[in-house]
Amino acid sequence: MENRPLILVVNDDGYEARGLEAMVSIAKEFGEVVVVAPDQVRSAMGHAITMNVPLHVTHYKTVDGVQYWRTNGTPVDCVKLGQKVVLRGRQVDLVLSGINHGSNSSVSVIYSGTMGAAIEASFDTAAIGLSVQDYSPNADFTAAVHYGKKIVKAVLEKGLPPHVCLNVNVPKIPFEEIKGMKITRQTEGYWYEDMEKRVDPYGREYYWLTGHLVDTDHAEGSCEWALHHNYISIQPVHYDLTAYHAMNDVKYLEDVQ
Amino acid sequence: MENRPLILVVNDDGYEARGLEAMVSIAKEFGEVVVVAPDQVRSAMGHAITMNVPLHVTHYKTVDGVQYWRTNGTPVDCVKLGQKVVLRGRQVDLVLSGINHGSNSSVSVIYSGTMGAAIEASFDTAAIGLSVQDYSPNADFTAAVHYGKKIVKAVLEKGLPPHVCLNVNVPKIPFEEIKGMKITRQTEGYWYEDMEKRVDPYGREYYWLTGHLVDTDHAEGSCEWALHHNYISIQPVHYDLTAYHAMNDVKYLEDVQ
Repeated sequence: MENRPLILVVNDDGYEARGLEAMVSIAKEFGEVVVVAPDQVRSAMGHAITMNVPLHVTHYKTVDGVQYWRTNGTPVDCVKLGQKVVLRGRQVDLVLSGINHGSNSSVSVIYSGTMGAAIEASFDTAAIGLSVQDYSPNADFTAAVHYGKKIVKAVLEKGLPPHVCLNVNVPKIPFEEIKGMKITRQTEGYWYEDMEKRVDPYGREYYWLTGHLVDTDHAEGSCEWALHHNYISIQPVHYDLTAYHAMNDVKYLEDVQ
Repeated sequence: MENRPLILVVNDDGYEARGLEAMVSIAKEFGEVVVVAPDQVRSAMGHAITMNVPLHVTHYKTVDGVQYWRTNGTPVDCVKLGQKVVLRGRQVDLVLSGINHGSNSSVSVIYSGTMGAAIEASFDTAAIGLSVQDYSPNADFTAAVHYGKKIVKAVLEKGLPPHVCLNVNVPKIPFEEIKGMKITRQTEGYWYEDMEKRVDPYGREYYWLTGHLVDTDHAEGSCEWALHHNYISIQPVHYDLTAYHAMNDVKYLEDVQ
């Protein structure tokens, strides 16, 4: 047991992703670090959990005092397994999710396993999801690590509001061009999907889900605005999906006969 | 082509679930119906999509003019495949998701494949997720079908606000005790998880994810309040996860040096 903060690191790109090591390099500066990562790529798993198969979680290495575990579970399962099994209920001070290879700005946040894990953690601890706007396995994490450390330091000192986590996205520009950090709201938009049709060697049709993000909102204050203007976007995120603005609009349903 | 509304029915309990047939019985009264369901149980998949394996979607029967398709995809994939592949881009008028065996009230909404599909659909059409407070494969859908028809009729007539879908939950009480329908907000709470540890025949430890919902909020107007007071809960849901109430609280991060 140490007096340093206890930091749980998880991701959705899997235990071999370079972004995971980049996140560990941030976490190690501030506390005792335990890693629980998926044993394969589990991107775009949203808030999925595993109920139909049993979960395994295996310690596979310890390096510089950092324990590394991997699991067949989803990113959200990594948080649950980390808290309940690996750490046996010890109170975690901070959960760090990522660093994700690829942006989780705009509506990507709802598909994101990285953010699913951060949201799960926010039920009882501070949590930050950190992503870079670059899907490459060899994405450059220099800026994400630099600003990530600033954010982690500040959050450990000042905390986050209850049940609120951060969705941090770093633009793909040279480090020295980054102007700073902006608190943002989610950009309005959607994923335009194509289903790319192919035929397998046995004559059966199948589809690859592909697509691109369409932003319908370019206003100042949105996460995409920040990224396009060379800022790091910090979106505070919560798990209340209620459309409060629409409650009166659907009130007519109470009177339906 | 018909002039009746085009209704896409999806679920997360899979193509063999009784709840799916109950939903089809609602949809058939109002329009042309196409079903796209997972080929296995895909509960608790949240907003997961499938990017790492190819998707198949297969027509397996047509009954009374209703086309039934099944897929290896998630509930959200069912919506995308329905729109893009099965219906080849025809504009859907309404997506119905469920009827789910089990409640999607309180924070269950963020784990729910049923609601993941409804939220996905809400990007460009009206959508309703319908669930009963009973996980049994033989759950009683009488009340859900009765009130579901009222809701579908009203929504087809009056519409929903853009990008807002409905999370409808039906209490597990005798039909005649239901007092009506209430527009609600998401109940504050969390899932308390246990990881039930077992040892396989080869001596390896594994875990089953189990747990129960803990509501920390019993105030009037919440979805759990409505269910406990014998009302059907109708929560308007959107996909903007921004914690607007917390934006000022985290503004300090913009000034971190």
